[in-house]
Amino acid sequence: MSSLDINCDMAEGFGIYSFGQDREIISLISSANIACGFHAGGPEQMHEAVNLCLKHDVAIGAHPGYYDLQGFGRRRIVCSFSEIKNMIIYQVGALKAIAGSLGGRVEYIKPHGALYNTAAVDDITASAVIEAAIGLGGLPLMVPDASLITKMAEERGIIVIREGFADRNYNNAGTLVSRDNANAIISSPAVAAAQVIMMVREGKVNSVDGHKMNLSVDSVCVHGDNPGVIAVLNEIRKVLAENNISVVKALKALGGRNVCS
Amino acid sequence: MSSLDINCDMAEGFGIYSFGQDREIISLISSANIACGFHAGGPEQMHEAVNLCLKHDVAIGAHPGYYDLQGFGRRRIVCSFSEIKNMIIYQVGALKAIAGSLGGRVEYIKPHGALYNTAAVDDITASAVIEAAIGLGGLPLMVPDASLITKMAEERGIIVIREGFADRNYNNAGTLVSRDNANAIISSPAVAAAQVIMMVREGKVNSVDGHKMNLSVDSVCVHGDNPGVIAVLNEIRKVLAENNISVVKALKALGGRNVCS
Amino acid sequence: MSSLDINCDMAEGFGIYSFGQDREIISLISSANIACGFHAGGPEQMHEAVNLCLKHDVAIGAHPGYYDLQGFGRRRIVCSFSEIKNMIIYQVGALKAIAGSLGGRVEYIKPHGALYNTAAVDDITASAVIEAAIGLGGLPLMVPDASLITKMAEERGIIVIREGFADRNYNNAGTLVSRDNANAIISSPAVAAAQVIMMVREGKVNSVDGHKMNLSVDSVCVHGDNPGVIAVLNEIRKVLAENNISVVKALKALGGRNVCS
Amino acid sequence: MSSLDINCDMAEGFGIYSFGQDREIISLISSANIACGFHAGGPEQMHEAVNLCLKHDVAIGAHPGYYDLQGFGRRRIVCSFSEIKNMIIYQVGALKAIAGSLGGRVEYIKPHGALYNTAAVDDITASAVIEAAIGLGGLPLMVPDASLITKMAEERGIIVIREGFADRNYNNAGTLVSRDNANAIISSPAVAAAQVIMMVREGKVNSVDGHKMNLSVDSVCVHGDNPGVIAVLNEIRKVLAENNISVVKALKALGGRNVCS
Repeated sequence: MSSLDINCDMAEGFGIYSFGQDREIISLISSANIACGFHAGGPEQMHEAVNLCLKHDVAIGAHPGYYDLQGFGRRRIVCSFSEIKNMIIYQVGALKAIAGSLGGRVEYIKPHGALYNTAAVDDITASAVIEAAIGLGGLPLMVPDASLITKMAEERGIIVIREGFADRNYNNAGTLVSRDNANAIISSPAVAAAQVIMMVREGKVNSVDGHKMNLSVDSVCVHGDNPGVIAVLNEIRKVLAENNISVVKALKALGGRNVCS
Repeated sequence: MSSLDINCDMAEGFGIYSFGQDREIISLISSANIACGFHAGGPEQMHEAVNLCLKHDVAIGAHPGYYDLQGFGRRRIVCSFSEIKNMIIYQVGALKAIAGSLGGRVEYIKPHGALYNTAAVDDITASAVIEAAIGLGGLPLMVPDASLITKMAEERGIIVIREGFADRNYNNAGTLVSRDNANAIISSPAVAAAQVIMMVREGKVNSVDGHKMNLSVDSVCVHGDNPGVIAVLNEIRKVLAENNISVVKALKALGGRNVCS
Repeated sequence: MSSLDINCDMAEGFGIYSFGQDREIISLISSANIACGFHAGGPEQMHEAVNLCLKHDVAIGAHPGYYDLQGFGRRRIVCSFSEIKNMIIYQVGALKAIAGSLGGRVEYIKPHGALYNTAAVDDITASAVIEAAIGLGGLPLMVPDASLITKMAEERGIIVIREGFADRNYNNAGTLVSRDNANAIISSPAVAAAQVIMMVREGKVNSVDGHKMNLSVDSVCVHGDNPGVIAVLNEIRKVLAENNISVVKALKALGGRNVCS
Repeated sequence: MSSLDINCDMAEGFGIYSFGQDREIISLISSANIACGFHAGGPEQMHEAVNLCLKHDVAIGAHPGYYDLQGFGRRRIVCSFSEIKNMIIYQVGALKAIAGSLGGRVEYIKPHGALYNTAAVDDITASAVIEAAIGLGGLPLMVPDASLITKMAEERGIIVIREGFADRNYNNAGTLVSRDNANAIISSPAVAAAQVIMMVREGKVNSVDGHKMNLSVDSVCVHGDNPGVIAVLNEIRKVLAENNISVVKALKALGGRNVCS
């Protein structure tokens, strides 16, 4: 029986502002990427999200981003290797301590937004993220399949959780269709679930131009700020069950394939 | 032979701004309180300060503050118990990870500025600081002698490093003369050194009104933004040597007096 | 026929975060207090809110606050006279320029949250707000009736728009019941409308303890983050119409009473 | 007799941090570009800088930047046309109000750092800066000679103050040598003064590769954070006097050449 992780970004409110539907989503996912205060979130939101993860037996992931609350971490800020490395260690360390104070443990790192996209293609950013993971004791990285950082991380002996997106359309290059485009988001639960099944069963995904591309995934991401996210998650879980694919935490979905140590 | 720790705040620059004289001071102190990004500093400054500490065998302390870059953490912001506890765990966790990535270790927590002053007298703030220390695995606290937080921390089994100030004048109540007053700062190296010797030899300090008050110290603080700090530090070290008082890291200066575990 | 202004805070989102129901509320109010980027909002939100005001013929007010995005300006930050004065001039000047670029004009200043509450009782804060209004060319102030700042502003020749709250309960001292208390908010449209009518007809308000207190108002505030705000606004407008009280912009509701120049 | 403006960035401290040597420089320049709180500075710093300008009869310019205190506005942040336009109107409006409260007036806008460099070459950024200037009532722009924004601004009827740099080396493309390079800064007063004289007398500048390029200037910039800035300014003023070139405020240095209205 094969398995798959379902992840979602969490704790992305700020101050008085709430964001997403963390309390509704938590029982439908297996891994949570918790914002660490630079692009969103903060100590209180992180504390609450860790508590939700522990209550629902969901894996705790760190979701560090650029220092850009106004832009929600979706704008690239050109930073040096050292700046990127240290800002990731800082953010993940903060979450480790909050998780630790509640009896939890950070299991992996998933960079957020523009940092995620930049690390997939930029050598300096990718190596800074990888060295941060090493500096944090060798935490696994959740990154896109077939990207520069995936290749570089495995060469450095870092465990990679390959990620695909359930509710986003893909370009031919294997990148996501930009949020500036009307067809960036998949809102149909059935289409999203079919995309997930193709990823798991065939290791493929259809691009918006109709090409079928290779995409190997250990985890699929669903976005919590999509109003229809609950319906999408329910449909994915239903179709996964029909296909005898169990939903497990990120590191359990690896199947030993790329575990290095 | 008795011993004393000399501590100084560090890493209090921000972005392009430098502050203090970290590189000159580091060889004259035994413990460094490293700002954690909320009132000053940030990942890069923390990385550099940890490196300085490791190179000069100086104890690494965390120096968390209120989230107030504009006010340098010197303005009290009324926060809930949970907000204070989690923001301290966040900041100290960030420093723990940066220290860990360089082979170092955080040895204690010293709250900064308005958080330090508030924790000395306010029950909710003091207990939030203490529960943060416990949530961080029981880190010792560097706090003022004879304060509310000292008493409460010891009752909770947290190690307390009693602190006095070499370069600040005291009120009769044992509090520091406010920075708003002309006589807040002691700039004479001889006067500062004499104040330190009296603290160690007699367990006393003179107030600005001429009263002699009890003050028991394991560590004395010198401020790095004082332009004459190097002369003050040299004089203190000279007089300590003449009095056969050795300069040691904060936790070695405790003399077993208040070690609880 | 008597008249009354109905005001509401607007533009209080931040970055990706939305807040309140500006687009639904705008057609039901006569004056909008537009956040200026320190406690919430920013250039884009201000631009959009000014456009809404111009389209719906609603008076544009500036709503400056403490520099505290994390606390939404609801936490007092102790600032000097000069800091308060200049931060208000800064924020209101920013809104004046954005309004000007769209052909609009700022008609008054209403301090936000903790700044509003502090200015009502603290001499230094009140005088800093007043001097800011003078520095801005003598802009009217929207402040609580019978407060310190109302008295001081009139003595300095600044026009005062006396404000009452439709959807908040009052203490005996004439202050608002704190948001920490369960009975802070009035959610019943009928109760809120009755409170407004009593303010206008009798110049009185009932405290939570049943005392009837003097409260003279030119404008009543309704809070946009209250989920039932549309029902409250509709009921207030219906009852005002039944009582032959017209809804007009803040400065038209003054009735010449406290116009000084 | 010809004339030239000498400008310098000012008010670039933040909170407790000071930056530059505003009080020493103010008597040696004719125009000051005052930071507006987004990349540096804030209400207090702006207030103080305006006072200095008024006391020394120096022209007040607005120096808006990206919202990036940590990066001092030197990192490009990709923003939309609307975001750039409104953030400039916001910042300049804030300075206009502070200047107005002291009896002063903002005479021009000079974008800061990465915003300055981006506006010189990027169509969307340039047009957003220009529309902001128009939205602010048609304020002149201080921008590089022979750049995209210079051309576009003049086509839109905005007055352009052409700027050259006294203490920075130029590439063949007419752009500044990046601060990442060792030869970015000219520290020799004699070399800086000679560069200025060549700009004024010949309308030329030498690139680092020895090419002589066209560069027409109304104003030259000197950087206040250069430790030797006072010597550089004194030398420039001495050599200008020897060449019968008077130092005048930016708008008086235009010579009617590009005044449009």
